Amino acid sequence: MRDTNRTWYFAERPTGEPDADCFDLRETDRPEPNPGELVVRVNYLSVDPYMRGRMRDTESYAEPWDVGDVLKGGVVGEVVESESEQYDVGDFVTGEGTWADYSVMDADDVAPVDPTVADLPAYLGVLGMPGRTAYFGLLDVGEPTPGDTVVVSGAAGAVGSVVGQIAKLNGCRVVGFAGSDEKTDWLTDDLGFDAAINYKTTDDYRAALDEAAPDGVDVYFDNVGGPITDAVFTKLNLDARVAVCGQIAHYNDEEVPMGPRKLPMLIAPRAKVQGLLVGDYATRFGEASERLATWVARGDLEHRETVVEGLENAPDAFLGLFAGDNIGKQVVRVSTPSA
Amino acid sequence: MRDTNRTWYFAERPTGEPDADCFDLRETDRPEPNPGELVVRVNYLSVDPYMRGRMRDTESYAEPWDVGDVLKGGVVGEVVESESEQYDVGDFVTGEGTWADYSVMDADDVAPVDPTVADLPAYLGVLGMPGRTAYFGLLDVGEPTPGDTVVVSGAAGAVGSVVGQIAKLNGCRVVGFAGSDEKTDWLTDDLGFDAAINYKTTDDYRAALDEAAPDGVDVYFDNVGGPITDAVFTKLNLDARVAVCGQIAHYNDEEVPMGPRKLPMLIAPRAKVQGLLVGDYATRFGEASERLATWVARGDLEHRETVVEGLENAPDAFLGLFAGDNIGKQVVRVSTPSA
Repeated sequence: MRDTNRTWYFAERPTGEPDADCFDLRETDRPEPNPGELVVRVNYLSVDPYMRGRMRDTESYAEPWDVGDVLKGGVVGEVVESESEQYDVGDFVTGEGTWADYSVMDADDVAPVDPTVADLPAYLGVLGMPGRTAYFGLLDVGEPTPGDTVVVSGAAGAVGSVVGQIAKLNGCRVVGFAGSDEKTDWLTDDLGFDAAINYKTTDDYRAALDEAAPDGVDVYFDNVGGPITDAVFTKLNLDARVAVCGQIAHYNDEEVPMGPRKLPMLIAPRAKVQGLLVGDYATRFGEASERLATWVARGDLEHRETVVEGLENAPDAFLGLFAGDNIGKQVVRVSTPSA
Repeated sequence: MRDTNRTWYFAERPTGEPDADCFDLRETDRPEPNPGELVVRVNYLSVDPYMRGRMRDTESYAEPWDVGDVLKGGVVGEVVESESEQYDVGDFVTGEGTWADYSVMDADDVAPVDPTVADLPAYLGVLGMPGRTAYFGLLDVGEPTPGDTVVVSGAAGAVGSVVGQIAKLNGCRVVGFAGSDEKTDWLTDDLGFDAAINYKTTDDYRAALDEAAPDGVDVYFDNVGGPITDAVFTKLNLDARVAVCGQIAHYNDEEVPMGPRKLPMLIAPRAKVQGLLVGDYATRFGEASERLATWVARGDLEHRETVVEGLENAPDAFLGLFAGDNIGKQVVRVSTPSA
């Protein structure tokens, strides 16, 4: 007898902030693989802010989910059935799977995972999509040079925490914005940030930047948008680079949000602002993975995951992203690895 | 006996829109040159939107004017006294001079003008700073490729009219925003723009762009800001480039203007937005001047100047920029060339 398979479906498009009504957990039989496919027992599931965009019915970079669709996301897990010569039962893999106990994945679309290099959840964070996003976004769009001041919003998140550390490895002064003292302490005490600003307890972000970034801002890596970003834009140095990676402050907005116009601020510093999607760097993922793994192995790159227990709590883990519940990468533990 | 010299001084910092009270005309003796200097009889004076920034007391890319300072600007005129071996009396030169009948200029800071290549006012427009701004802004920041759709705001202005024509020379579809039917007719009938939108008589800029730029926007050259720019940002294609050259809609704002937040719009198209100052390309001015002059000589690049008569009317010419009075380059005729 096959195991059952719990799977989360997209039940309802949210208006504004998503809630539990958007998600529907159903139980079916464990799926069977077609030729070339694997059945992966999901150990960890990734929830990410960009998924909010897939809940809209408008075309964007990520294909929108239709109501009734199975929810998808990055997973890491163990091959329990293989119809591919590329992977054997017992291998660990990562790739785009489903919010489920078991996920059928095409062997061509997954990457091998070595649990001896790093814990499994790290493959959804520092060694996964968020780590690669940080790597290419900072290095290719931000183009930091030694001595630059790099400011990161969402600095204690999966992407931001890696951005700041890579900037430190590149000889920069690094300032992070994060939403709790626990987070800012982690940034300065463990990750080596030069300064960190708790945006929830700070009134005047410009004044805070005057102190934390006295020489102005050369690179801004933006995961957040909103008033933090408004403040940083007033401090851009000549030839400043802004990587727009995320705008989580605005993902739940139903109307186009208003804010201070920024284009007039770009002329005097000749600043460059660029939107960023990691998928554009697919041909260079190998380079990023190798360097990130090396830094992790050397202890140059710290990482942390916030683990929510149980597939049944996956929606809560996702919703927690918008409340800033996570430190480092937010993941869901779906099952314990057998190894 | 030396001639007298009328000179405009900066009398008062404006709040909001500048007016006549900001300017003060005084009469002094015609100046005398020191070694290395020329006295230039000003034939044409340039008034430009960026001068509004010099009227603020905040540091920006152009040094602020202090109350009581002589007003400065681009001039073209005839050398009437020379203490330099580089120029003889009777030569025509262009450079940064003063709002005056006679301007003392350092011979090292002026460029020769050949009145047989183009009329003198063209050296303040298509063959001057605005032409070079268009050239580098479009080609280096906008990076147009054949088949791209290029949208230009302030399209009938000194910079915009050149941008659109260079884009046509590069095989692009070109759409301009301008503020009168006379201007839009000039763009489409004389300059070869594919479409032009009169923003003063059009209600829905997005709908107008749906028609004029049905394939979306690959390059946006922005001289204006405000609602035109808001509309264009909703139509940016993948890898779109935005050159922020000017934001004349906002130059008279006393507070940071509010508008739709644009950073969230940059992620899906991975758009690049970059501030632009022509001074950064100083080492390549020769290249630009040569190509612009060649295009003008061939008839590939049309140009037009709006001429206000008389130095006494220079403030009106400047203020008219904000009302959109000019078609092509706004200049002031200060004296008739003797040649």
